[in-house]
Amino acid sequence: MHKYERTANVAIVGARGYTGQELARLLLAHPAARLTACFSTDATYRLSDLLPEASAASVPVYSLKDAIPSGGLDAIFLATPAEVSMELAPKLLEAGMSVIDLSGAFRLEAAQYPKWYGFEHKSASALAAARYGLVPWTKPSETKTPVLISNPGCYATAALTAILPLLAHGLIEPETLVIDAKSGTSGAGKKAAENLLFSEVDGDCLPYKVAAHQHLPEIIRHAKAFAGAEIDPAFSTHLLPVKRGITAAVYARVKKGVTASKVAGAFAEAYENYALVRHGAPAPALLSLRKVVGSARAHVAHHLDGDKLYVYSAIDNLLKGAASQAVENLNALLGLPVTTGLLDKEGTL
Amino acid sequence: MHKYERTANVAIVGARGYTGQELARLLLAHPAARLTACFSTDATYRLSDLLPEASAASVPVYSLKDAIPSGGLDAIFLATPAEVSMELAPKLLEAGMSVIDLSGAFRLEAAQYPKWYGFEHKSASALAAARYGLVPWTKPSETKTPVLISNPGCYATAALTAILPLLAHGLIEPETLVIDAKSGTSGAGKKAAENLLFSEVDGDCLPYKVAAHQHLPEIIRHAKAFAGAEIDPAFSTHLLPVKRGITAAVYARVKKGVTASKVAGAFAEAYENYALVRHGAPAPALLSLRKVVGSARAHVAHHLDGDKLYVYSAIDNLLKGAASQAVENLNALLGLPVTTGLLDKEGTL
Amino acid sequence: MHKYERTANVAIVGARGYTGQELARLLLAHPAARLTACFSTDATYRLSDLLPEASAASVPVYSLKDAIPSGGLDAIFLATPAEVSMELAPKLLEAGMSVIDLSGAFRLEAAQYPKWYGFEHKSASALAAARYGLVPWTKPSETKTPVLISNPGCYATAALTAILPLLAHGLIEPETLVIDAKSGTSGAGKKAAENLLFSEVDGDCLPYKVAAHQHLPEIIRHAKAFAGAEIDPAFSTHLLPVKRGITAAVYARVKKGVTASKVAGAFAEAYENYALVRHGAPAPALLSLRKVVGSARAHVAHHLDGDKLYVYSAIDNLLKGAASQAVENLNALLGLPVTTGLLDKEGTL
Amino acid sequence: MHKYERTANVAIVGARGYTGQELARLLLAHPAARLTACFSTDATYRLSDLLPEASAASVPVYSLKDAIPSGGLDAIFLATPAEVSMELAPKLLEAGMSVIDLSGAFRLEAAQYPKWYGFEHKSASALAAARYGLVPWTKPSETKTPVLISNPGCYATAALTAILPLLAHGLIEPETLVIDAKSGTSGAGKKAAENLLFSEVDGDCLPYKVAAHQHLPEIIRHAKAFAGAEIDPAFSTHLLPVKRGITAAVYARVKKGVTASKVAGAFAEAYENYALVRHGAPAPALLSLRKVVGSARAHVAHHLDGDKLYVYSAIDNLLKGAASQAVENLNALLGLPVTTGLLDKEGTL
Repeated sequence: MHKYERTANVAIVGARGYTGQELARLLLAHPAARLTACFSTDATYRLSDLLPEASAASVPVYSLKDAIPSGGLDAIFLATPAEVSMELAPKLLEAGMSVIDLSGAFRLEAAQYPKWYGFEHKSASALAAARYGLVPWTKPSETKTPVLISNPGCYATAALTAILPLLAHGLIEPETLVIDAKSGTSGAGKKAAENLLFSEVDGDCLPYKVAAHQHLPEIIRHAKAFAGAEIDPAFSTHLLPVKRGITAAVYARVKKGVTASKVAGAFAEAYENYALVRHGAPAPALLSLRKVVGSARAHVAHHLDGDKLYVYSAIDNLLKGAASQAVENLNALLGLPVTTGLLDKEGTL
Repeated sequence: MHKYERTANVAIVGARGYTGQELARLLLAHPAARLTACFSTDATYRLSDLLPEASAASVPVYSLKDAIPSGGLDAIFLATPAEVSMELAPKLLEAGMSVIDLSGAFRLEAAQYPKWYGFEHKSASALAAARYGLVPWTKPSETKTPVLISNPGCYATAALTAILPLLAHGLIEPETLVIDAKSGTSGAGKKAAENLLFSEVDGDCLPYKVAAHQHLPEIIRHAKAFAGAEIDPAFSTHLLPVKRGITAAVYARVKKGVTASKVAGAFAEAYENYALVRHGAPAPALLSLRKVVGSARAHVAHHLDGDKLYVYSAIDNLLKGAASQAVENLNALLGLPVTTGLLDKEGTL
Repeated sequence: MHKYERTANVAIVGARGYTGQELARLLLAHPAARLTACFSTDATYRLSDLLPEASAASVPVYSLKDAIPSGGLDAIFLATPAEVSMELAPKLLEAGMSVIDLSGAFRLEAAQYPKWYGFEHKSASALAAARYGLVPWTKPSETKTPVLISNPGCYATAALTAILPLLAHGLIEPETLVIDAKSGTSGAGKKAAENLLFSEVDGDCLPYKVAAHQHLPEIIRHAKAFAGAEIDPAFSTHLLPVKRGITAAVYARVKKGVTASKVAGAFAEAYENYALVRHGAPAPALLSLRKVVGSARAHVAHHLDGDKLYVYSAIDNLLKGAASQAVENLNALLGLPVTTGLLDKEGTL
Repeated sequence: MHKYERTANVAIVGARGYTGQELARLLLAHPAARLTACFSTDATYRLSDLLPEASAASVPVYSLKDAIPSGGLDAIFLATPAEVSMELAPKLLEAGMSVIDLSGAFRLEAAQYPKWYGFEHKSASALAAARYGLVPWTKPSETKTPVLISNPGCYATAALTAILPLLAHGLIEPETLVIDAKSGTSGAGKKAAENLLFSEVDGDCLPYKVAAHQHLPEIIRHAKAFAGAEIDPAFSTHLLPVKRGITAAVYARVKKGVTASKVAGAFAEAYENYALVRHGAPAPALLSLRKVVGSARAHVAHHLDGDKLYVYSAIDNLLKGAASQAVENLNALLGLPVTTGLLDKEGTL
């Protein structure tokens, strides 16, 4: 077993939700991090009620009302609603901790928040300093800690993983880009809502937030940042009668002269040094949600038919779309290989 | 209750499959048709084993090996594999019966069959004479009976219902057209296949037949026929963990100057005299599969965001996508309103 | 079509829930009843938003706060929580309307309510006068209207339909009786609750309310009332990842000398004049939930293995377990055959 | 990490099925076993097509037709149909390998096979020598290798884990025992069959093999062997619309004087030294399938209501009900703690 120089002390705010649970699970098994505490808006649960791992029993859960952590942690994960993260992150940064925020609070420009998130952004300087942590696209940085890392949205991760190689090489006509995404219900979290009841979701596949999903401006903004491309894709989101997983179909017309091997080459180049993306021609093993659920990987399949390019991207929305990518960001922060503690996360039946 | 001048005698070949069962159910309740018999390649079942309706008990099931019907029927429905339909239809026409074929045997041009269906078409003259029965787009005809009606494919019905009004009015840039369709498992029929097992389908949403689904050339061919439009859309099909229903998302860029009200007007004009299409702005009642499952209707919702047009089309794959549209075609053949016996087919929870 | 002497005017309080919707649907299609209005605690919906039937558009929805109906109705259905029904029913009876209550408010003895329902019963005289409407077991009565009919619980209907014939003929050892019941999620209604989320229910089959379900004393009380039997069964309820349907497995040891034909005879005698129970030996057509979902029937299958008796009972929890049995009770009230308007309710795929 | 003295070489016959895959996955990660090969009746697959683990790529798959292993292995697992196991096991034993058979070929007495398995048992001496490997009930043995271990059936494991503590202490009236079990579809394996199609299973909960399931005599036989108890329980099996997991409800009347604490004590004593059974009062964390799916544990919850005892037992049918229990048997064979390589198998959402 690899020997790590030191163990980082970390904590989670909001471990009761689906994402928080997965994050806690990953951190409990992480070889170079120690989950020292969880914080909750209501501290009425024990981590051992949520997770079967024996080690869960020794992690205390504190109420946020009583105690805001004031240091002593290398990093703290926020698995909280965007407005809560917006308030908390600057305070935690000031107290000297790096923050990895899993909400949407630091993904857009301040002016976009009223339209897409329904609130005014009140932490402008934290927002300006935040780094968008899309792995492996985000470049390592020399920034001194503490830093604020904005963990990408689940749909945005699935979409950007599929389109950035194409945009970076200028292979497609941007104005033909369409992203049709489908997500399992855990992406909507654990809050009780009529439209998420089993009786409502089962047997359906409901398109929702038509042309209004907050991950659309996130995709557009970071396509520009990472690939210099101006895009304005059509973007649909559907609610699948499935617990976990996102699958996104991406359509575009390629530019004149672009061949199948150029497309394959763009993916190969983008991900040759990154173990958590598998790509290739469409086949059930690459297209199936089941093959990525439980895994920290993204699967990308592509097919060129004339000038019509089909790309399918699949991730576990709670892992690569949230918790495991957050751990990748922690790893980068600690100077470890990004895949530390994640390579053995594999899908099951 | 309306009094019909006469009752048509009809039969079904292949009533044991999901589509055949739904067709039998509709015909048992039809006010102007009498289901006189079913024919099967293995006559080892009774219709009353499949359907709870008391009237099912009095419909005999004959083996096709023993007895090919030689007349006495006004129309016969073929719910058989394409190659079986290709062989049977000409014989039945010759025997004087009109044929409504629910397979793909008569939807394309002969030359397309090897590529898309994997067989050579051996009934060229029947194919040439077949009429594609997309309701309400197919015009009434003066053709003397017997006629061969090719009932449209389920994906093709969902797609054409959504795009024909747009194409007929020239509202969209055809080269930007994308159709992303998702279907329940009953569309694949009742045959035992590993990839259709519950253990394989549940929790997944598998894209399949990428750029290779036989309904793609069907959509292209009949878009030309009905709207004079040359299209070459990207087209994806996904297998939902759902029993019934198809939902298709259609994306296109509108032509310069096209407004939301022009789009709405195109749908209104296309379907103003047709009770089985509901259309409007996206809302769960129009977007939800549950609202069309069990119904003979199609629901179409559309939204224009800048020049990006989103159209969602939902049908019950076994009804509007197969059996109830076949009954519409029977009604047209009998000179009845196409919705006869179908308006009261309504979705449920 | 049968000509009914007169049409009864009826109304529903609480049509927005799953049961209320099904009830509205049945009443809209009923040949001898007219749904004149719905009442709601929040009148913010239209019936046509919930039901696709064209006739739904003409049924007004009133707020209960503004207007308590004061007569003019032959019967009113309460699809409301038990405490609301307890308050409303006496007022409506006083105003001269018969009441068919679908809640548990009038199924037990007053003294049982604190333990099983968590509230004191405040409408003792209405409770004493209420008639438990288990069809076909409830005998016709000469009571002058208005009457208060307590519509049985869904689990109680499934269980009593299976055990009453056995108890009435003294075929089983009562102290060996076990009832293991499984229900779809619609039985829990439409209220948002974390434990009913798709993410929680899918992939599970959770036993709940162990030895504490309020339908247990209902079963015990009415087994005594209808069959004179003192029973104290073990009773489990499970939440299935299914929207609709209840299946209950009933186990008991038969008394010495009881044969399979005696068991079959007891069922035949109990249900020979009642079209809405099908019974026989175990076979998928009788055991499958799918075959009763959408239907007003109960299916009962039985098998004797030595002295071990297995009985399986399946119903649609929203129909025979609620709405269609309520319509049976209306029919009885109006002097019509109990199956009026229900025989054509048949299951589908 | 613990240092094991030596690494055992093992192989699997039949790794393509659901159970075989899980077994391969466990063995690839086992700290003291090396999966050296897989054998198949059709060697047309690669293990890396089935499993995402990188180590899968280096495990060869041989056709059984070409090569029957002739030694060099410490143990071989048979994940094959019962008739295949019956033929293979004696040959492999003769060749010097210990055999862990996951089929039903060695669980009953020879005379029982025609009735419950539909074939004559042709390997009588192997059957007589086979040891039933129910962990932790099977006592360690001094038998020299090679040995034939019969891995228990999934339903039998769930049931015996729940009832053996009660029977061993004589707490219940055996003639009142009822076992109502529900299983996910993976228990039926991966073979294409119409009744296992998604379209057939979804929305249902079908009782099957009423009084005829082959795990009933297995439960009876081994209740006698482990607890000296003569039982003849009613036993039902249901097919859940769920991929993985078995939940069994066990009902019995306790003997006079038996208290809740005696029941709790029986479970505590039986499992005090065994980490893979969790037991306690009914609570969602112990009752939920989701909490054991993916885990090697069994969960048992019990509640005494008067003299009525309710016990609920939940396992992952592919793990504790098959593959992980087989690894426990391997561990016992190797003189390792039975939980080696299994304690970290934990359930997930």
